Amino acid sequence: MKKWEISVIPGDGIGIEVMPEATRVLDRLAEIHGGIAFSYREYPWSCEYYLEHGVMMPEDGLKQLEQSDAVFLGAVGNPKLVADHISLWGLLVNIRRGFEQVINVRPAKQMKGIASPLVNPKEFDFIVVRENSEGEYSEVGGRIHSGEDEMAIQNAVFTRKGITRAMDYAFELAKTRRGHVTSATKSNGIVHSMPFWDEVFQDVSKRYEDIQTQSVHIDALSAFLVSKPHTFDVIVASNLFGDILTDIGASIMGSIGIAPAANININGKYPSMFEPVHGSAPDIVGQGIANPIGQIWTGKMMLDHLGERELGTLLLDTIEEVLQDGIKTPDIGGTASTIEVTDHIFNKLNCGHSWCQAPSV
Amino acid sequence: MKKWEISVIPGDGIGIEVMPEATRVLDRLAEIHGGIAFSYREYPWSCEYYLEHGVMMPEDGLKQLEQSDAVFLGAVGNPKLVADHISLWGLLVNIRRGFEQVINVRPAKQMKGIASPLVNPKEFDFIVVRENSEGEYSEVGGRIHSGEDEMAIQNAVFTRKGITRAMDYAFELAKTRRGHVTSATKSNGIVHSMPFWDEVFQDVSKRYEDIQTQSVHIDALSAFLVSKPHTFDVIVASNLFGDILTDIGASIMGSIGIAPAANININGKYPSMFEPVHGSAPDIVGQGIANPIGQIWTGKMMLDHLGERELGTLLLDTIEEVLQDGIKTPDIGGTASTIEVTDHIFNKLNCGHSWCQAPSV
Ligand SMILES: CC(C)[C@H](C(=O)O)[C@@H](O)C(=O)O
Ligand SMILES: CC(C)[C@H](C(=O)O)[C@@H](O)C(=O)O
Repeated sequence: MKKWEISVIPGDGIGIEVMPEATRVLDRLAEIHGGIAFSYREYPWSCEYYLEHGVMMPEDGLKQLEQSDAVFLGAVGNPKLVADHISLWGLLVNIRRGFEQVINVRPAKQMKGIASPLVNPKEFDFIVVRENSEGEYSEVGGRIHSGEDEMAIQNAVFTRKGITRAMDYAFELAKTRRGHVTSATKSNGIVHSMPFWDEVFQDVSKRYEDIQTQSVHIDALSAFLVSKPHTFDVIVASNLFGDILTDIGASIMGSIGIAPAANININGKYPSMFEPVHGSAPDIVGQGIANPIGQIWTGKMMLDHLGERELGTLLLDTIEEVLQDGIKTPDIGGTASTIEVTDHIFNKLNCGHSWCQAPSV
Repeated sequence: MKKWEISVIPGDGIGIEVMPEATRVLDRLAEIHGGIAFSYREYPWSCEYYLEHGVMMPEDGLKQLEQSDAVFLGAVGNPKLVADHISLWGLLVNIRRGFEQVINVRPAKQMKGIASPLVNPKEFDFIVVRENSEGEYSEVGGRIHSGEDEMAIQNAVFTRKGITRAMDYAFELAKTRRGHVTSATKSNGIVHSMPFWDEVFQDVSKRYEDIQTQSVHIDALSAFLVSKPHTFDVIVASNLFGDILTDIGASIMGSIGIAPAANININGKYPSMFEPVHGSAPDIVGQGIANPIGQIWTGKMMLDHLGERELGTLLLDTIEEVLQDGIKTPDIGGTASTIEVTDHIFNKLNCGHSWCQAPSV
């Protein structure tokens, strides 16, 4: 029996509500599989933790997580902490960087059973590979002068190494898909970092002769995700551009409540982290209506990463079936509760795979 | 007779095709009005000009434009100039900065007669006020090292003065509209410039007690322009964020081919510049199918700026009528040519206003 050790950080708000739903679905899948099990260690790190301890996670926090096979995160954020970069950098970004999770992967596809806000979504299916360690999210910078003359300088730092590994990841991914990579740039307006980004894209492209490429400025690309999302396969983007594109991706899917994400440690030195795109959603906390699909689909990405790809596929298929049955939370036009949606997924999960030892339900 | 002196720069590609359409509509409006006239001086500055002269505009170019009441620009860009920041910074950004056009204003509204790509656009009607002089579009930065170790540093520079004047513009505009300002931020990820942006927003807000405000992160805001664009009134954004949001705005309107823009010199020292959001569109050049509405609507913004607000309103109403009649270019689902669309606008233009001296047609 293979035992996967998962560090679980429910975090704040609806993170606490959807996390147990996702883990019970994972357990169900393990049961079906018969040959694997998950063991969870839960950590209370969150804004609540911060309000009590003055830090988002203990100093040896990364050490505590380090031995696990993956980190499974809910959501971080609490309106009581107005300057939300403190909470986010203290936990989310801290883990991304501390564990060298240099790639952020976020799929967007038109899900059966969910009405897209687009008139003509044409079964779009793309993945954004986001550089997750540098770029516009840099701590380099500061302020000078005060009063009327005050100014802030923000440095974006792009390295060839950082860009190259994100692009390599994107090209390798494209090989397993439709063979097309789009680079998000803005070299017509941002004149140092983005021409550099374009150069590296040219260089990396040369190593992948069979992959088709294009560079599109972020303004146009954002618009294209609305007007022709079906034309994209893999999109590689900087930290900020990837952040923006993936929220647009979530929105054309019909709800940010369903979008999954993975923060990948590519050198295998540290665990990767899996966290849905949505935040802690303070506006709907406590109502039992948070959409669990973002967290559950994120669980599918974790399964894929752990090598359990058949289970991952089974899970995503099952999610789509339940959506097609109309069992949906209010954010996607339904009336079901968080728990009802999960119950349906749970009950529907059964196995059609050769390796499955459990009787189908 | 009031004579408005307009500097006309058709630029490249479809800019050359749509510009004469817009000026003949303006002339028609002047004729209807009876008390004003436009006099145009045309400048050939463009990528073609660059290929011949090695510069996008002559050294004394700004001087040549300086006495005019407004600059009316088509589009800039030519695939022959791969590094398009050269052409764009040489002309477009050069004029924006040289003439202290520190504010970029771009409306987005659901136009009657055009199908939005959104299932439920709910008559959205918002304006993005974009800081147009600093921020992420800074020439400060460069490269260090080479080979594998190469890196690029890009500085974004935000001043209290620059942010404040953009925000003041936004708040003043909101007073004339629905009284709501949204600030586009990303202070949870970009930790120097964006918290500063937020602080200035707080400070400026205090001076406008009657205006409702909210701050929304750019990732979520981009998604909201897809999921609930009707909830926004005035959005104030940095140079880059404004660039992205306005292309999304154009895209939910149904085509980038209709979106207008104004670059405003707020101290009245230099002319303002009016240019549509679309580019030179090399893919459709020469086919006679470029949508003239972006340029014509941009002409409406120029009319408003020159104080001819009634003419501006008449023009926009007429554009909507022609769209509702189904006279549309292919980008918005029609079969009409550039010239046919303009002809219809031209012929429909007639006056219902008290001050109009021309007989209605
Ligand atoms: C061409 C480019 C420099 C420009 C910008 O980003 O400002 C354009 O996209 C625009 O929005 O006018
Ligand atoms: C919360 C914030 C720092 C974060 C980001 O921008 O990376 C979030 O928006 C995300 O996309 O995971």
